[in-house]
This record gives sequence, structure tokens and C-alpha cells, in this order.
Amino acid sequence: MTQSDQPVLIAGKWRAAIQPTGSFQAANPTTGQMLPISYPISGREEVIEAVEAAHQAAQILRTTAPEKIAAFLDRFADLIEGQRESLIDSAYQESGLPREPRLKGETSRTTNQLRQAAQAAREDSWTNPVIDSKLNIRSILAPLGGAVVVFGPNNFPFAFNSISGGDFAAAIASRNPVIAKANPAHPGTTFLLAQLAFQAVQETGLPEATIQLIYHFENSIGLELVSHPLIGATGFTGSRAAGLKLKEAADRVGKPIYLEMSSVNPVFMLRGALEERLEALAGEYFTSCTLESGQFCTNPGLVILPESPQAEAFIQATKERFTNAQPGVLLGEKVVTGLVEALKTLTEAGAEVITGGHPIDGGGYRFANTLLRVDGERFLRHAKELQAEAFGPVGLFILARDEQQILEIANQLEGNLTGTIYSHTSGKDDAFYQRLEPLLRQRVGRLLNDKMPTGVAVSPAMQHGGPFPSTGHPGFTSVGIPASIRRFTTLHSYDNVRPARHPLELQNPNPTGRLWRLIDGDLSQADVPDNN
Amino acid sequence: MTQSDQPVLIAGKWRAAIQPTGSFQAANPTTGQMLPISYPISGREEVIEAVEAAHQAAQILRTTAPEKIAAFLDRFADLIEGQRESLIDSAYQESGLPREPRLKGETSRTTNQLRQAAQAAREDSWTNPVIDSKLNIRSILAPLGGAVVVFGPNNFPFAFNSISGGDFAAAIASRNPVIAKANPAHPGTTFLLAQLAFQAVQETGLPEATIQLIYHFENSIGLELVSHPLIGATGFTGSRAAGLKLKEAADRVGKPIYLEMSSVNPVFMLRGALEERLEALAGEYFTSCTLESGQFCTNPGLVILPESPQAEAFIQATKERFTNAQPGVLLGEKVVTGLVEALKTLTEAGAEVITGGHPIDGGGYRFANTLLRVDGERFLRHAKELQAEAFGPVGLFILARDEQQILEIANQLEGNLTGTIYSHTSGKDDAFYQRLEPLLRQRVGRLLNDKMPTGVAVSPAMQHGGPFPSTGHPGFTSVGIPASIRRFTTLHSYDNVRPARHPLELQNPNPTGRLWRLIDGDLSQADVPDNN
Repeated sequence: MTQSDQPVLIAGKWRAAIQPTGSFQAANPTTGQMLPISYPISGREEVIEAVEAAHQAAQILRTTAPEKIAAFLDRFADLIEGQRESLIDSAYQESGLPREPRLKGETSRTTNQLRQAAQAAREDSWTNPVIDSKLNIRSILAPLGGAVVVFGPNNFPFAFNSISGGDFAAAIASRNPVIAKANPAHPGTTFLLAQLAFQAVQETGLPEATIQLIYHFENSIGLELVSHPLIGATGFTGSRAAGLKLKEAADRVGKPIYLEMSSVNPVFMLRGALEERLEALAGEYFTSCTLESGQFCTNPGLVILPESPQAEAFIQATKERFTNAQPGVLLGEKVVTGLVEALKTLTEAGAEVITGGHPIDGGGYRFANTLLRVDGERFLRHAKELQAEAFGPVGLFILARDEQQILEIANQLEGNLTGTIYSHTSGKDDAFYQRLEPLLRQRVGRLLNDKMPTGVAVSPAMQHGGPFPSTGHPGFTSVGIPASIRRFTTLHSYDNVRPARHPLELQNPNPTGRLWRLIDGDLSQADVPDNN
Repeated sequence: MTQSDQPVLIAGKWRAAIQPTGSFQAANPTTGQMLPISYPISGREEVIEAVEAAHQAAQILRTTAPEKIAAFLDRFADLIEGQRESLIDSAYQESGLPREPRLKGETSRTTNQLRQAAQAAREDSWTNPVIDSKLNIRSILAPLGGAVVVFGPNNFPFAFNSISGGDFAAAIASRNPVIAKANPAHPGTTFLLAQLAFQAVQETGLPEATIQLIYHFENSIGLELVSHPLIGATGFTGSRAAGLKLKEAADRVGKPIYLEMSSVNPVFMLRGALEERLEALAGEYFTSCTLESGQFCTNPGLVILPESPQAEAFIQATKERFTNAQPGVLLGEKVVTGLVEALKTLTEAGAEVITGGHPIDGGGYRFANTLLRVDGERFLRHAKELQAEAFGPVGLFILARDEQQILEIANQLEGNLTGTIYSHTSGKDDAFYQRLEPLLRQRVGRLLNDKMPTGVAVSPAMQHGGPFPSTGHPGFTSVGIPASIRRFTTLHSYDNVRPARHPLELQNPNPTGRLWRLIDGDLSQADVPDNN
């Protein structure tokens, strides 16, 4: 490490890292060159200091007025908008993602999400108050009382950033401090965001350790962090390998950890859909699978097709698009090596490359737009290997002999974030849909019709989650407010507690006049009569 | 095993166990004699068969009409009432718990709970429908699509029984099949309950594998069961050692598991409360701690007192009650050996026995009503050992030097189901309450004032759960409807799905006319207009 390493944000101070174990730089993916600024790899002492400072802050935050939390989230969104250009410059340098529409759109998504979180904090409905006035037992979802540790992924420098993204917004809305672990692919963008977040913390008078920033640490420290007695929970978005290690450490001591790991997002193209609109489907698939080089958690990596001339024509039409399109820049060298490895796994298990299949030389990180195919029988024999995630512009077609085999394939799918069925618009496929849907439904968090899964709307009805191994628990989502907030809460019951000692949400008067509460079995916005 | 072993209930058939690995009998705790009836220890093949049959049943149940589920739960409650006398006879023989008021009261609690679950199934509000009509994204909490495996504890032969208790009711209300693993302390009662449940299944036309019963299996099979790909989740109430092993197995493969393990349920008696009403407090404490031999998850095992003449008088008054009362019967030999072990741990760590401290000879399972004491300083030095759960009529008093030490003790408490503060009724202790409450609040699921924790009301506002290690996740409760139901659901989102393909709860018309849905951000019982 050097004097010139960027500072960390610990316990309300921007400062040089204490006893760092090294330093690192991010690369510019467009050129493959290292960027000039270096960042420290924090040591154990620093991380523990952050945990303790967050725990102190949590003691204040847990009873901070909702309006103050909301003011912070709104102010932070304003500050991001004010610095949008420099943020986009930084993210472009570090990610190679297109400035427009992608990075610009992502800043809007991020500020929109922060403002939705502000609104949820203000409404306070995430607290889900329940009042049994007869027995005087009252319950509420409460803050965790310790840090929410957030590990952000490489592919969304804003909307999933550990200091501005969905986990961050959900954790803060529910009055928890955040320890942000930057993704090492975009430390500079994370630093800029943290500066703005910290400015908003100071302006709105939250405890200074409400947000803290560490760029990197060794794996063993990560395991200690997610299992530390003083933290509240962890939100992680990233690779399955890293996620499972953190999960094991957290599970062992009963610390909640919410993981979004890997997903191949199967798409079923039913016979009628192919007969009806194969060119359109080829276009949709191409766009979704190669959009920003396919680096989405919900990238449609697996397509199940019935063996037929139409399927062959679909494959041909898709192949042409994949082959003719210019491969985009990938987020980092690890993405390239991950793709090489995934291609090896897929081809060794019997998938044949139709187009692409290799990295592209000539500066920066690139991989050819790639399609593979395999027949249903072979897929069923190697179902595990052939569901290896290839994070990038890669799709695998499975050609199924008949409807029965399509169902067998569906039955072999691992847990995924999404699953999609395209069918004939006038109902020709409906009988088969009815057989397929239950199998797919139970293996995915979000089921789609006639639409590619790559758009993840910030909607209250979103499930950006799914059965293991796409996440660690099928009942939670990392996108969508207020549902995503629930992850960072704990259920507190008050039994025979004296009136003035209840949190405001549980006292007899409705604290906002509008808060919905379950009072004696009925949802109500009324006060509880004072004889209770 | 013998021909005369009782039958298991697998895949809709009462039958002799297939390839059992042994058999066992329960004991009559009052005499210590084995009861004559023997039960099989099921082998792996039988357990896997149950998993597969449940998975098949789950495929039907997940779309079964709420009314049909409700009818089953109501009918089962009726049948229990019809057989109440024989059920109580059986439970008395196997548990030694008093017929009245305890076992009779427990049957009422059980049927009440089943009927509350029926009502929740009928109302369907546990599905928590969310509709974003602009984007046509809709979400719902859905059944898990596989068995909920329920391990019941020894101490509630009805209300927490794996085939009639809280986990059972919650799992069925959310349309999941149940594989009940009987507690080996009361297999006969469980057998009787399963007969009634199965009769109700048949009468109401649910899939026959909706409920299945296994009495016992080797530990390794339990680990395989809770991690089987075809199960949905597990509900466990029992010892920490067994719970943690099951948790590890389930966590490794991302299968939800909800555990209620151990808890010492700290009670803080503040100075003013002791000054005001120490005799009354001694009476309350004695009653709660020795009620039915103290065999409650929420038994108040730890009492924190400020060093004072009043505290000494309280201890003296409590001691007299403990010493003079006749020790009750314990549930089994394991409870006695567990108490001997716990007493060893506590005394080796420095706790002094005030009264009791030993098993009682002369037939049946009994242990002397026991009190111990330790000073605050020693507690702080051996906080882990001195929080060992002594499941039975045992209380440990901690004498704290001053208020600061009381706070330090609170800071060392593990996660507990409950925490209680007794304070002066006219507010004399309020300043200290304000300092103590935040520390205790964050370490317990249910916070009580001026009331012992042993009553666990089946209330919507109940939290019968808490931070690890009292449970595995602080956000869930095993008692209280509808909250307890949430454990056995998964979050399903529908994105751009065609109208008729939605589950009823997400279609535009309100399915019951009364179901609350979050529609475009507002809670509503209205239909969604059909242009959406």
C-alpha cells in the first residue's frame, strides 16, 4: 500500500486505511489497462472497527424518526443527480458499460429506487404493526440493531452498488447502518457515491457511522465480518462460489444473509410461438442475451425448443444476429476467464458451439457472442454441467424430442431467478402451457410470459430472488419496495408493556394517521381506543 | 422390530414400517416404566418414500381451494374434541403432565389454533397479493411445493405436536403437506392425532399424502430428510444440539429451516419493583418457574437482581416456596439427565445452589425444585456457561453490584425468546428502564413488563421466536397466525403473464370480495379494473 491509496470511510472519518494488507487498482475494461488510482485492502482491525462503529450508530438509528431517514435518502438521490456526469464518467472508465442509455439510465433507476425507499421509510408500513388490544400484545418489524453488510456485484455500478443500490436503500429505509464493501471492479465510482452519501448523512444529521466504506479485504476477513456478533445481516450479490462461503459462515452463527448468486434463466419457446413469430423471437432473444454483453443476473442463458424445422430456423436466425453483431466490452478480466471456464464445462458435457465460443483479442476484455446447442437427451444426462452459468453473451439451446422431454428438462432445472414461456398468442399452446407452468413456476422466483427476463423493474410486485441456488432463501427479494426491506428487519413482540414504552407505531394513536395496522384481526388506519 | 409395532402413515396408507432399523417404546414418566406399545424406527427407504409422496400431494395442494383446506382444519379440530378424553389419557400416560388444567387446556389451545389456521386459510390473506397494474407485474406468497417436515418437542403433546400443533397448522394453512416426525416421548398420542387428521383428510377430500407420520429414525436420516431436494422446509422445536445439526444440513443446500431451540428467558427485577412488592414477585416467579416442572421454552431461568436487602428477602421468599413445593413429574429420563448436566455446568462456573440441585429418587422422573445464585462479576466472567439452559424447575439469580453491572449483564445475554422487566408501578424505575430496555429489546423476541413469560398466547401479535441461538432467524415466529404461516411460503412474481394464467388471488377480480391486496401502492379490497 502507498500513501496515495484512496481513503476508507470508517466511523465518520475519511482516513487512510489502518494496517492495510495491500492495495489494488481497477482496470479500464475497454483497454485492459490499469487505472492510476489505488485503493487499500483493509485489514482485520479496520473491519472490526467499522462493525463496532456501525453498532453504535444502530443504537441511535433504530429509534430515529422515519422522516429523518427519508430526508437522507431523498437528499442522497439529489446529490447523485447533481454529480451525474462525473459519476457516469467514473463508471464508464471502470465498467466499460455504455454511457447512454445504460449508465445514464442506471443513475435514474438508482435515484428512483432511493426515493421509493425514502417514501417507504416515511410511510413506515414496512414495520407491519400488529396490535392485539384485548391481550395487550403488540408486534412490529424492527431494525436489526447492527450493520447491514453489503457486497455489491460488478455489473451494476449504481443500481446494485453497495453504497447506493437496492440492498443499501432497503437497509437504510429500515433504519440500519450499512457497511459497504465496494466491488473491486469499480472502487472509484463507489468512492464518489460514498462521498455523496456521507455528505447527505452529515446534512441530514444521521449518525456519522450510518454509512461506512471499505474497498476490499481478504476472504477470511469477509467470513469473520458476516458472522460477527455485532452485525445485523448481510446482503450479497455476486458469484455462487463466493456467496456459498459467506453463507456457510453466517449460517453457522445464525446471522441472516441474503444472497443473489447465479441463474441461467430458462426460456421455453413453445411450438406455436415458433410457428407464429420466429423471426421476432430471434430478435428478442438476440437483444436480451447480448444486451451490454449479456452481463445480467437475469440473462436468458438457456433456451428450450421443440425439435422442429421452426426451431432450426429460429436457431439459424439467432445465429446470424449473434455472429454479425460486434461483441461488446466485458466488465473485467474475470468475466473473460469465467466465460472460458464455462464454455469448457458446457462443451465437455456435450454442448456444440454454433457461433463464437472464444475470447477476442485486440485490447480490452471481450468475448465473441456465443451460441451452443445440445439435444434433450444429452442435457438430461448432464443436467448439472449444462446448467453452468456463463456470465456474458452466451446462450445454450436445448432441442427437446417431444413435449414429454420438455417436461423432463423442466424437472431438472435448478432454482433460478426467472423462467419464461413464449406461447402462441391465440391459445394454441395453452394445453401444454398448463402442464409446463407448474414445473417451471416452482423453480423460479419470477415467471414471465412472452417477454425476455432482462428488465428487472423496481416494482412492489417484483421478485428478484428465487429458490436455491439462485438465492439462499426463496421467500425474499432484493428488488422491489417495500418487500426488499423485510430482509433487514427482526420481529419484536411487546407483551403487557406499559403504553408509553411502546414504539410509536404500536401506541394507541395512529402515528401518521395513515399507517395501516392489523388491529384485533382487522387492517385499519384508526387509532386504538384508549381504554385498551 | 416386531410384527406388533404400530403402523406408520405413508402415502395414504397405515402400514407396517418397511425395513425399520429398530423399534422403541415410550416411558410413563410417573413410574419410569416402559409402556407396552412399540413403534418402529423407520429406515431411509421409508422416509424417502414419504418425501416423494408429499411432493406429489403438494402439486395438488398448491392450487387447492382455500375453503377445502379450511374445512380440513376445522374438521380435524372437531375430531380432536370428539376424542378429547382418550387423547388426554394417552398424553397423560406418556408425559405425566396433569390432566387438568394442563392437558385439557392444551387440547383447547390446539383446536383453537387449528381453527384460527382454518380462518386464515379461508381469508387467504397470508398470500399477501401485490399487483402493479401499470407494469402487469404481480406477486404472491405461495405454497412451497413440497413437504414441510415437522419435528415436535417433548413438552407439548398437543399444541406443538408435529401432527396437530402450530407448525402443522401453519404449514397446512398455506397448502403444504406435512411429514410429521413424532417426538419419541409421546408416540401414542401422536398416533391417535394422526388417525384423526387422516380421517379428516379423507372426509374433506385432500390428497391422502397431505399428512404422513413417522415415529423415529436415526440422526443421519434426519439430516438427509431436511436437505432433500423435494421437501419444502422444516419446522423444528427441540434441543439446541439437535437443532444445530439439522440447521447445518438444511442450510448447506438452501432449504429453509425454522428452529426453536433454547432460551433462558432473563427476568430483570428492578429496585423499585422489589421495594414495592417483593412477596408478590416471589409468588409469581415461583409459580412460573415451577409450573409443570418448569418444562417450558419460555421458562424464566435467569433472574437479574440488584444487590440489596430486598433482593435477599426476595431470594429467601422464593427459596421457601421452591423448597416447600412438591417437585412434579418430568417428561422423561432425558430431562433428568439434562438437568444433572446443566447443574454441573452452572455450579462449575461458580453458581451456588440455594435449594434443590439433585434428582429425586422413588419412581418416575423428578428433580428437586432448584435455585442457584451467582454474583454479577462472576456471571460476566463465565457468561456463556452461566446461560446454559436447565430445562426444568430451575432458576439462577444473578446479584448485580449496581446499575452499570446490570447493563453489562444485559449486554452479555445470548438471543432469547423472551425478556422481562419488572419495575415500580408508579414510575420510580423508569429512568433506568429507559437505559436497560434497548439492550434487552434487541436480544429477545418478546419483551414483557411485569408479567412472567410462560404464557404464550396464540395471538397475531405474538413473537415466539428471537435472535440466534433461540431460533435460527430473528424475523419469524412459530406461534401466532397469520405471522407463523409466512415461514412456509415462497415469493412468486408473475411478469407480463396473461390474465387467465394468474392464480386467483392475482386476477383482476378480488377472489373473495374481501381480500386485501396492495394494488399500485395502496392496500385495497377492490377489483383491479379490467383494462389492466
